[in-house]
Amino acid sequence: MIRYPNGKTFQPNKTVSSKKSQKQSPSYSNRGMTLEDDLNETNKYYLANQIAVIHKKPTPVQIVNVHYPKRSAAVIKEAYFKQSSTTDYNGIYKGRYIDFEAKETKNKTAFPLQNFHEHQIEHMKQVAAQGGICFVIISAFDKVYFLEADKLFVFWERKEKNGRKSIRKDELEDASFPISLGYSPRIDYISIIEQLYFSQETVD
Amino acid sequence: MIRYPNGKTFQPNKTVSSKKSQKQSPSYSNRGMTLEDDLNETNKYYLANQIAVIHKKPTPVQIVNVHYPKRSAAVIKEAYFKQSSTTDYNGIYKGRYIDFEAKETKNKTAFPLQNFHEHQIEHMKQVAAQGGICFVIISAFDKVYFLEADKLFVFWERKEKNGRKSIRKDELEDASFPISLGYSPRIDYISIIEQLYFSQETVD
Repeated sequence: MIRYPNGKTFQPNKTVSSKKSQKQSPSYSNRGMTLEDDLNETNKYYLANQIAVIHKKPTPVQIVNVHYPKRSAAVIKEAYFKQSSTTDYNGIYKGRYIDFEAKETKNKTAFPLQNFHEHQIEHMKQVAAQGGICFVIISAFDKVYFLEADKLFVFWERKEKNGRKSIRKDELEDASFPISLGYSPRIDYISIIEQLYFSQETVD
Repeated sequence: MIRYPNGKTFQPNKTVSSKKSQKQSPSYSNRGMTLEDDLNETNKYYLANQIAVIHKKPTPVQIVNVHYPKRSAAVIKEAYFKQSSTTDYNGIYKGRYIDFEAKETKNKTAFPLQNFHEHQIEHMKQVAAQGGICFVIISAFDKVYFLEADKLFVFWERKEKNGRKSIRKDELEDASFPISLGYSPRIDYISIIEQLYFSQETVD
């Protein structure tokens, strides 16, 4: 149990997943914080505590027109969103290169693979080939999952061979590791990495 | 000597640095290509040849206003440039985390440290503490230099203690490694990393 400094107990946002009686189970998107917000807070925590240096890459933008008004900052007047050729997050933990993508779905039975585009999968394969620690963080079914890239590739190949276009809930549960949600850090994905790549213990 | 497929010899852009008789020595900026262009080409080469996976991060932009016209792409109508909290380039080489910044100067006698901002130095220190391979690529005095972050920190501390606000040409020559410029890859910084961190040989 986690307690705030004032002694009150902290109620993790996501432990409600077992309360199946609730009609509107609180998904990630309707509790006010996004997965991205929580990951940014988590990464700030890792940075401040010298645990890891992980940043989200800026949104890629094609800048077309910039105005330079006198005595004030340049204003971008026309720009367009570009598709990223990589994943959104990367950095370093204990000397190892870390690379991941984060995705959410509101779908209640499966995670649709259309959440990824070909470029991102290609990038993840390149990173894996260089020996990087590569994975995806998936927020789905009121939980957060850590899915290694190698496992994702298997589902992706199935789709490419005209198979299912999604990962079924039970498949995801089997292939991934659950990330426990907490107060600080909120989404402690480094603890999974520590167990998987740096510790002798097995993760079940 | 490098030859194009048609047999013509390739004239590297930067071997003119010894021709001191030239009045206008061709600096990086007035030969049409920028250091950024050359690094992007270099990184493409590394990626295509499965040598390393290194990308430039997108320019950070604060988006204020977006229009969503019917039947066409979203248009960013107001946005501002943000200061980056990290370096511009990162990625992976043989499992190791790579992180660097690239800077140019037209100054003929010294490299001004104002080319870096505090955030970037702070980021490089965090990366170095995690065991990353961290450095800067400096285009100055008609050459390209590979300067390890640890060496940069020494010059930065001197500035912080009210010392010189720049790195003198001879200091840079002493502290760094020259990167030979070629056709493909254009700026082969990975060969320096290979010698410094992966090979038994000493780089002189």
